[in-house]
Amino acid sequence: MTKTASQPLFNTVAFVGMGLIGSSMARRIKRDGLANKITCAVRSEATRDRVLELGLADEAYCDIKDAVGDADLVMLCAPLGANEAIGAQLTGALKKGAIVSDVGSVKQSVIRDIAPQLDEGVHFVPGHPLAGTEHSGPDSGFPELFEERWCILTPVPGESEDAADKVTALWEACGMYVERMDADHHDRILGITSHLPHLIAYTIVGTATDLEDALRQEVIKFSATGFRDFTRIAASDPTMWRDVFLNNREAVLDVLGRFQEDLMALQRAIRWGEGDKLFELFSRTREIRRGIVDAGQYFANFSAEGEARQSDETGKKKTDE
Amino acid sequence: MTKTASQPLFNTVAFVGMGLIGSSMARRIKRDGLANKITCAVRSEATRDRVLELGLADEAYCDIKDAVGDADLVMLCAPLGANEAIGAQLTGALKKGAIVSDVGSVKQSVIRDIAPQLDEGVHFVPGHPLAGTEHSGPDSGFPELFEERWCILTPVPGESEDAADKVTALWEACGMYVERMDADHHDRILGITSHLPHLIAYTIVGTATDLEDALRQEVIKFSATGFRDFTRIAASDPTMWRDVFLNNREAVLDVLGRFQEDLMALQRAIRWGEGDKLFELFSRTREIRRGIVDAGQYFANFSAEGEARQSDETGKKKTDE
Repeated sequence: MTKTASQPLFNTVAFVGMGLIGSSMARRIKRDGLANKITCAVRSEATRDRVLELGLADEAYCDIKDAVGDADLVMLCAPLGANEAIGAQLTGALKKGAIVSDVGSVKQSVIRDIAPQLDEGVHFVPGHPLAGTEHSGPDSGFPELFEERWCILTPVPGESEDAADKVTALWEACGMYVERMDADHHDRILGITSHLPHLIAYTIVGTATDLEDALRQEVIKFSATGFRDFTRIAASDPTMWRDVFLNNREAVLDVLGRFQEDLMALQRAIRWGEGDKLFELFSRTREIRRGIVDAGQYFANFSAEGEARQSDETGKKKTDE
Repeated sequence: MTKTASQPLFNTVAFVGMGLIGSSMARRIKRDGLANKITCAVRSEATRDRVLELGLADEAYCDIKDAVGDADLVMLCAPLGANEAIGAQLTGALKKGAIVSDVGSVKQSVIRDIAPQLDEGVHFVPGHPLAGTEHSGPDSGFPELFEERWCILTPVPGESEDAADKVTALWEACGMYVERMDADHHDRILGITSHLPHLIAYTIVGTATDLEDALRQEVIKFSATGFRDFTRIAASDPTMWRDVFLNNREAVLDVLGRFQEDLMALQRAIRWGEGDKLFELFSRTREIRRGIVDAGQYFANFSAEGEARQSDETGKKKTDE
């Protein structure tokens, strides 16, 4: 599903942070003419120079106030831990009617850190594009990153519908399917589908890292499915993920507690040789996979490409075992 | 690396079990003329008929003794839990000089269950091709399954070099890289690279399965990286994996214990907001990924295709987050 914008959706879009997500969005906006002008604020002069070198923005600054003054849309793309300080820079710096949105993986904390610092007349539309790679920095972005992925918006109660619609239009123009829900619901779902799996992947790769050297080398050499997938996940940006876990603490600890209990039960079944219990669980988990495959990997209803995607999924994918 | 056999490596190969691995191997042997004749024994008449329908074997039986009497190579491809009973059927049924090999994911238990039941003059070469998909059954196999994957052989001390060389030649003709090591060492490595990741995947998908219905539906809908990968792993054959955990109990419990400790430490760091500890681990795990990528995904030294593989790996792979 590639949409072509007939006209710019915004006059000026300002990015705060230009990593994988910000630079992918900027590339898409440039490529498809979704805004007339892109400005950005980044932390270091080196990054600022690199951003200009890559042509990701028309203007790049190290001071947030320099970047956002004329913006119709301010897109926050820095790690979650920076939001409180960024919010303070936004106070009194935006023009009336400007929209502030973001791409953070946790939504309640963004609302907590940003919303109170915005002036009256500035609109806030928290958002989360479910897209990424394990790479980071302005060089790692690419304009197709968002194609056929979900974007979740968590509008604040009482906020203007119009602002949320404009942000929706931009993400759709980037190729995404947009859905709205409450921030706490988002945080709970993502705690299960994304944050817990990342935590597990970091842990299992960490456990392997601590093995004696010779064994670790062989683990790398014979790294099989699961483990190799885990190493990719566990190569994700450390700052971003530290902030995710610190900012979605309750939801992560809740699902982690359930996971630990379930794992203990399995460990006990292995120790006591309870094959029936193992078989029962392993049969049950097969069903949820069918659910995902039957859902056409969640896109069949949306686009013709869904078909191809589904058959990829049900087709022959080789793994090691 | 596709090798073409100039002549058959065996006269008759007998398969015991015709699931994903057995039927992939049979297809490869047929396709490349690696044996003059294929026989097999399967458990049910329905499977026997299906195997013949698919042309996977020249002769198919439900009784092991019927299938193996004339075999030069007997390849055991049934779940590990069946080995003891299969071994009993092999006693007195094989011709002198025949080689017995297998494809099981645990090697010490195979040696324990099979070796004592083989007659003098029959050679035993335990093996494990590190290849698979989440699908199972005779329909799921395909001849390219083994291409550019590792096969680990764990020859029993005192066993003939010649037999191990013949099995090596067959796996190489199937496209694999063959390495030999001790069975206990194999079981420890695979416990880390394959068995623990599968156990984790089964657990996390099981935890999601137990969620209240509405939330589970949304977890499926927005299933992101990690979780979606996990569901694929957790769709693997329940019988096979039950047997793996029951038969590699010590190695799995050992690495699971380490993993649990590490996960508890992370959980505590999240609860107490210890960002530095999280950041330190998340930075460390990035390194092991570089190790795998630097190792050219373990194939660059072996083939030209290793290059393409490596750039796949370092290239842009989209994920959800």
